[in-house]
Amino acid sequence: MTSSADTADKAGESTLDAFHRGAFHLVQPRRGHRAGMDAMMLAASVPGSFAGRLADLGAGAGAAGLAVAARCPDASVALVERDAGMAVYARRSIAHEANAGLRDRARVIEADVTLTGKARLAAGLVDGAFDFALMNPPFNAPIDRPSPDVLRRSAHVMEDGLFERWLRTAAAIVRPRGGLSIIARPGSLPEILTAMQGRFGGAQIMPIQPRAHEHAIRIVVRAIRGSRAGLVLMPALAIHEPAGHRFSQQADAINNGRATLFGD
Amino acid sequence: MTSSADTADKAGESTLDAFHRGAFHLVQPRRGHRAGMDAMMLAASVPGSFAGRLADLGAGAGAAGLAVAARCPDASVALVERDAGMAVYARRSIAHEANAGLRDRARVIEADVTLTGKARLAAGLVDGAFDFALMNPPFNAPIDRPSPDVLRRSAHVMEDGLFERWLRTAAAIVRPRGGLSIIARPGSLPEILTAMQGRFGGAQIMPIQPRAHEHAIRIVVRAIRGSRAGLVLMPALAIHEPAGHRFSQQADAINNGRATLFGD
Repeated sequence: MTSSADTADKAGESTLDAFHRGAFHLVQPRRGHRAGMDAMMLAASVPGSFAGRLADLGAGAGAAGLAVAARCPDASVALVERDAGMAVYARRSIAHEANAGLRDRARVIEADVTLTGKARLAAGLVDGAFDFALMNPPFNAPIDRPSPDVLRRSAHVMEDGLFERWLRTAAAIVRPRGGLSIIARPGSLPEILTAMQGRFGGAQIMPIQPRAHEHAIRIVVRAIRGSRAGLVLMPALAIHEPAGHRFSQQADAINNGRATLFGD
Repeated sequence: MTSSADTADKAGESTLDAFHRGAFHLVQPRRGHRAGMDAMMLAASVPGSFAGRLADLGAGAGAAGLAVAARCPDASVALVERDAGMAVYARRSIAHEANAGLRDRARVIEADVTLTGKARLAAGLVDGAFDFALMNPPFNAPIDRPSPDVLRRSAHVMEDGLFERWLRTAAAIVRPRGGLSIIARPGSLPEILTAMQGRFGGAQIMPIQPRAHEHAIRIVVRAIRGSRAGLVLMPALAIHEPAGHRFSQQADAINNGRATLFGD
């Protein structure tokens, strides 16, 4: 990712950031939660052959959803974001001339992912309407030191039962045999697996480790709506080379939209 | 492991097998479920400093429990096995002169792990009586092609809700802050994590992979009775070198009682 000032923004509160070596751009708040490798790894879990409708739940400025749109020419993406301020950034990202190639395949749904019943339908989160859902929920446990920045705290602090509520919506809006990917902390695995029961199966768990010999700091869980297949624990992705801060070849390729996380 | 005929057995139905480069021996049935690397990896999850009372739940001929007794001089082990035939082998293993160094620290409890109430207590599975429990439950899912051999089938075929029943007993017999280790297939992870809820925490999950770039075929889950700590996903153990069938250095050391699985 390369970042520059957003020239349309006189007050200097936003930046324009290039992802996937310039294949798409994000308009983001200079302060607060900023998209990075988490969003790129989540987007990379979508198979290269994906075509259809994808919902990016908790989209922020749209990094994960737009990364899929940039990589998969037959994907259309809905960026679902409840925070009005972040939804503005998502709309500005879509509208930016640097994203002209995917502008017609992206839209914003300003809605809380945890809406239920008629309120969910009215927001456009319609039953079976999507072929794939991405979930990048606020996954810093409350035990963590809260960020001093309000926007960042809103995007990072986890609520109890969050995965249950988010997966209830994901199960409703994804068609049978459609896909789901979640990025989360390893500590959330019990809650995720519980919430997936009876909704999603055939789960593949990809541990993300800083280095090959360190424990995982993230997991990406990919699953299939209505599948009864068992869980698979994949070989981990190491972000860095064994020594130093250099990205591993695989992580660099994933970060730049050149490789997929599950190799499909 | 090196295997030879059991000279005390005129009918030739059993073998005497050396483990940990001769540090302990097992008398095993020639046919049926035979102990191997699963039991050694499970035993290797017990820290080197362990001292106290350990229960090996589903002990078979006693491989995992006796491996701990051989490696930890201040450990005493109870081999819990419901199958009368296998319990005979466990007793013969303990009594064998090759195990003279650990004979006084090992005993057999012939009982079903899933006993409840007074029946469990009467069998010797007393509340809080153990500092650590090992679980090597029958973990081949029923979907697998059943083995033609009855003893092997009995040891491998999984029953529904098995982890819930085994973990209920483990939670009863392990003292607060005591340890638990389970070896299982990755597909059992949802059931294991659900059954651990409110009983064991601070789980460490160790994926066991045939090779570094292949998905896990086993997991070892280690946890602490009553802990509220979160789950940790460890870097995987690869059994073989990247090419060929040669054991990795780490797997060979674990298999021979020279290293522990979690490095403690």
